[in-house]
Amino acid sequence: MLLRMSNLFLRTLREDPADAEVPSHKLLVRAGYVRRAAPGIYTWLPLGKMVLENVARVVREEMNAMGGQEVLLPALLPKEYYEASGRWEEYGDTLFRLKDRKGADYLLGPTHEELFTLLVKGEYSSYKDFPVVLYQIQEKFRDEARPRAGVLRGREFHMKDSYSFDIDDEGLQESYDRHRAAYIRIFDRLGLEYVIVSATSGAMGGSASEEFLAVAATGEDTFVRSTESDYAANVEAVRTPAPAELPVEGLPEAQVHHTPDTATIQTLVDFLNNTVLNDAGPGRDAFTEADTLKNVLVKTRAPGSEDWELLAIGVPGDREVDFKRLEAALEPTEVALLEEADFAANPFLAKGYIGPKALLDNKVRYLVDPRVVTGTAWVTGADKTDHHVIGLVAGRDFTPDGTIDVAEVRDGDASPDGRGTLYTARGIEIGHIFQLGRKYADAFKLDALGPDGKPKRVTMGSYGIGVSRAVASVVEQSHDDKGIIWPREISPADVHVVGTGKGGEVEEALRIGGELEARGLRVLVDDRKAAPGVKFNDAELLGIPTVVIVGRGLKEGLVELRDRRSGERSDVPVGEIVDRTVTACSE
Amino acid sequence: MLLRMSNLFLRTLREDPADAEVPSHKLLVRAGYVRRAAPGIYTWLPLGKMVLENVARVVREEMNAMGGQEVLLPALLPKEYYEASGRWEEYGDTLFRLKDRKGADYLLGPTHEELFTLLVKGEYSSYKDFPVVLYQIQEKFRDEARPRAGVLRGREFHMKDSYSFDIDDEGLQESYDRHRAAYIRIFDRLGLEYVIVSATSGAMGGSASEEFLAVAATGEDTFVRSTESDYAANVEAVRTPAPAELPVEGLPEAQVHHTPDTATIQTLVDFLNNTVLNDAGPGRDAFTEADTLKNVLVKTRAPGSEDWELLAIGVPGDREVDFKRLEAALEPTEVALLEEADFAANPFLAKGYIGPKALLDNKVRYLVDPRVVTGTAWVTGADKTDHHVIGLVAGRDFTPDGTIDVAEVRDGDASPDGRGTLYTARGIEIGHIFQLGRKYADAFKLDALGPDGKPKRVTMGSYGIGVSRAVASVVEQSHDDKGIIWPREISPADVHVVGTGKGGEVEEALRIGGELEARGLRVLVDDRKAAPGVKFNDAELLGIPTVVIVGRGLKEGLVELRDRRSGERSDVPVGEIVDRTVTACSE
Repeated sequence: MLLRMSNLFLRTLREDPADAEVPSHKLLVRAGYVRRAAPGIYTWLPLGKMVLENVARVVREEMNAMGGQEVLLPALLPKEYYEASGRWEEYGDTLFRLKDRKGADYLLGPTHEELFTLLVKGEYSSYKDFPVVLYQIQEKFRDEARPRAGVLRGREFHMKDSYSFDIDDEGLQESYDRHRAAYIRIFDRLGLEYVIVSATSGAMGGSASEEFLAVAATGEDTFVRSTESDYAANVEAVRTPAPAELPVEGLPEAQVHHTPDTATIQTLVDFLNNTVLNDAGPGRDAFTEADTLKNVLVKTRAPGSEDWELLAIGVPGDREVDFKRLEAALEPTEVALLEEADFAANPFLAKGYIGPKALLDNKVRYLVDPRVVTGTAWVTGADKTDHHVIGLVAGRDFTPDGTIDVAEVRDGDASPDGRGTLYTARGIEIGHIFQLGRKYADAFKLDALGPDGKPKRVTMGSYGIGVSRAVASVVEQSHDDKGIIWPREISPADVHVVGTGKGGEVEEALRIGGELEARGLRVLVDDRKAAPGVKFNDAELLGIPTVVIVGRGLKEGLVELRDRRSGERSDVPVGEIVDRTVTACSE
Repeated sequence: MLLRMSNLFLRTLREDPADAEVPSHKLLVRAGYVRRAAPGIYTWLPLGKMVLENVARVVREEMNAMGGQEVLLPALLPKEYYEASGRWEEYGDTLFRLKDRKGADYLLGPTHEELFTLLVKGEYSSYKDFPVVLYQIQEKFRDEARPRAGVLRGREFHMKDSYSFDIDDEGLQESYDRHRAAYIRIFDRLGLEYVIVSATSGAMGGSASEEFLAVAATGEDTFVRSTESDYAANVEAVRTPAPAELPVEGLPEAQVHHTPDTATIQTLVDFLNNTVLNDAGPGRDAFTEADTLKNVLVKTRAPGSEDWELLAIGVPGDREVDFKRLEAALEPTEVALLEEADFAANPFLAKGYIGPKALLDNKVRYLVDPRVVTGTAWVTGADKTDHHVIGLVAGRDFTPDGTIDVAEVRDGDASPDGRGTLYTARGIEIGHIFQLGRKYADAFKLDALGPDGKPKRVTMGSYGIGVSRAVASVVEQSHDDKGIIWPREISPADVHVVGTGKGGEVEEALRIGGELEARGLRVLVDDRKAAPGVKFNDAELLGIPTVVIVGRGLKEGLVELRDRRSGERSDVPVGEIVDRTVTACSE
């Protein structure tokens, strides 16, 4: 391949696009890789198409190597299948829906679980047919509420989606593990720095699930990682370790105190330290927010149900309930904050002073933070305005209905794996692997006849890689203030030969380019009539990893070899430049 | 590549699908290349995906070789651009339309003239930038009224569309010619038998246009070809040669005859031969339908107009007006048949006896067949029930408003190139090349600054290849009663190695397959536990061009080499099979 910039459909821009906030968006547009066609909808220009295709090739090679078989499903899909799975409704406004000329309902595929399930059901029937992994690389459509950041979160985007079909849970685990290993190889080849985080499932419904997050300050996803280990997880998926239970014997009796005007944790702690602590005499540490048990009331509604039910959540007073963690923990049950009417309907709820007793007496479901183990003593509401109880011991004075791990996760919290502490980072979701289980197999009755002649329900996994998003993620991680720095594997070319001057330099650049092409390199030659500065700037902006400058030095028989990433430059005799470049490009 | 049928996602079918009428639809489904997902919407299974990709590769290679640059535009497109070009309305029900979550109108791209025009406008501004040819290979969407024949006419299909941009007509002609040459190479490589026909433009609006039609009895397009030359054309595009004008001097006066009950051509001819011919005495040939001039009345409405106007068309009485040719000739003007109310409103129209005089007297636009040249004499209506005029001479007794070439084209008509006669054939449109001219450049004001500093409107061409349709077209042309016969260039594999028996034949087949793979061939090995008959039938059905059978002969050290197309078979010593197969696959 030898591309000549003099006729390449490429125009670089000096200014960042007005709507661009993140580096990949700015650089991919400025360097002429993509152009916006509509909100969240992009055109890939020639060099961009090459990068996209290179990423797809890496994905395809590794998916084939792990035993995946490539197919291609349509993007335009009939409603009936998504109605059968429930996703026609569940997807809400994110689904693009349309009607055909006969008025039949269709949608544009956001992912293809339904169709793949039906496809396998149509062809396979015996346990001997399984396992099978099918995949496709295809445009997907999602009507994002806030398309942003160029191709990072588009409404039409390129995705590899694959689906595994196994006859038992062990098989699913194997298919899952093989995907996980393939994803690691793929993202390594793409040169991405990423973490694998435990994830919750979202609207997919299922069990084990991990996300691959490209580490990037501009990422939309927050995750926590450990200072001392590889541990990383979505905030929703962090499991707080429960401390050991404590003996209840010998603990002082719980005592109700009059604590006027202490409806907030801070006023309560101040009051306690100003009054109760003094009364207790020496030996008692000062009260902190962590000594209090805050009971947060919400209401929940199970899928298909009309009725809301109260749910109380007890968390240490130094932490808020993280609503995203709460939603994830309760999914698919809906959750909402209480309104005034709810308090009015439940007069036993003494706002600001709610305690376990009234909750349990009134049969309100009461779940507590994992830190609230048997033997821990708490300051909490006494179910009466201006009153709190001190020394209320879990497992002695109250027994909650269970635990729920939805308190906020904070930097400095102990890592769940026992090594180091957690800190928050941001990332871009570039891959997702997911044990679906039997949700779709149940919806479409996908069975395999077992060796005993009895039908066995198939179990599935689904696995996605954002191909266009991976392109942007690479740029987020691999750029400097001058432009993009492509990893060679997905670079649109191996070498960028720049000819500058009017003394035959451009012709020499083309000659060298031709020789490099003959040596199997993918070559871009800047043979334009343009000032040297323009050409140098464009070379930095475009980000081809190896650059050869044929310029002033040519008179002395020298050309310059540059490494885009390190910035290293060396003068090389013209006669050696082809060999030297081939070597540089194979390193 | 070595595929093992024991785990390939492939199940062949014994029965034709119930909805299949044409061979390609039956065979592509039965052989497990495609599966129906919805009406006119198909899934490509692993082997089908490979064939599709092989066709795309041929197209891509030739498009790159002719200087095309590959890009990728979105499928989901905002209404505004198609409104600007008028196609939002023009496309009618064939366009898939939808709204996004904000209520904005979108469509699924049927072709991308608008977006490409805007894309070039966004990047290019000087005459020095041109010419440029951009292309993409992508899913397209059209809500066909009657999707049919599997992937031959689908609603979601794969297409290569390219667009040329030039600053003058000569440039456009060159871009057009280069596309034409590339298309010839592409369809030759795909092994298709095709004709290039002059075409009318359809809804694209423009001038020169040719279609590539794969010759197939099952094709939807009718075309005519010459018995003696390469001439081929869409019926709509056939241009009837006008005969030379004749001298009017000495021709007998026109005479009105009472011709009772002769409202049809046949009754008129019979009457004339029974009465007038006898009166004329010897020397006058019998009247034929071709001696009569039939005046057909329709009404037309120009785009944007509310009013219908009458149009009379005079054709020789032995021919009908071909309504498709008429529509094509008048486009974009609408045309419709007259209703009773139209006759009532125009009492000068003597139904069955309409003649040129009343038409011209009443200012009805009157166009005649090219055969109606000055000096030809006709029997035609006398504008009075039961009366005809005989010997009415064109150019003497009436002067039409012009000619219109819309009479039916019949087998045996002289070829317009003067060589041979025409006959009708059927074909499948696999390619279309089209000089758009400035329609879209005008709509979007796409100008290039000329060397004189003045803006010059750019002129465009658009060019399409039905990639998925080409797959089906190949099968239409290349199959027998046992299955598909793939041309090697697009076959999913080079060689199909079938192992049959329980004496190590399957293992030997795998060993041979491995060696063939090492020699660079794409190999499919049938290593299934299945009866020999099943395997042989599947090999015929799948249609890989070269087949190696490792079966009973193995005991004597022999395997069989088969050519799928010729049916030729030869026994080959095991030690020679790899070399012999490599040779067979390179022929």
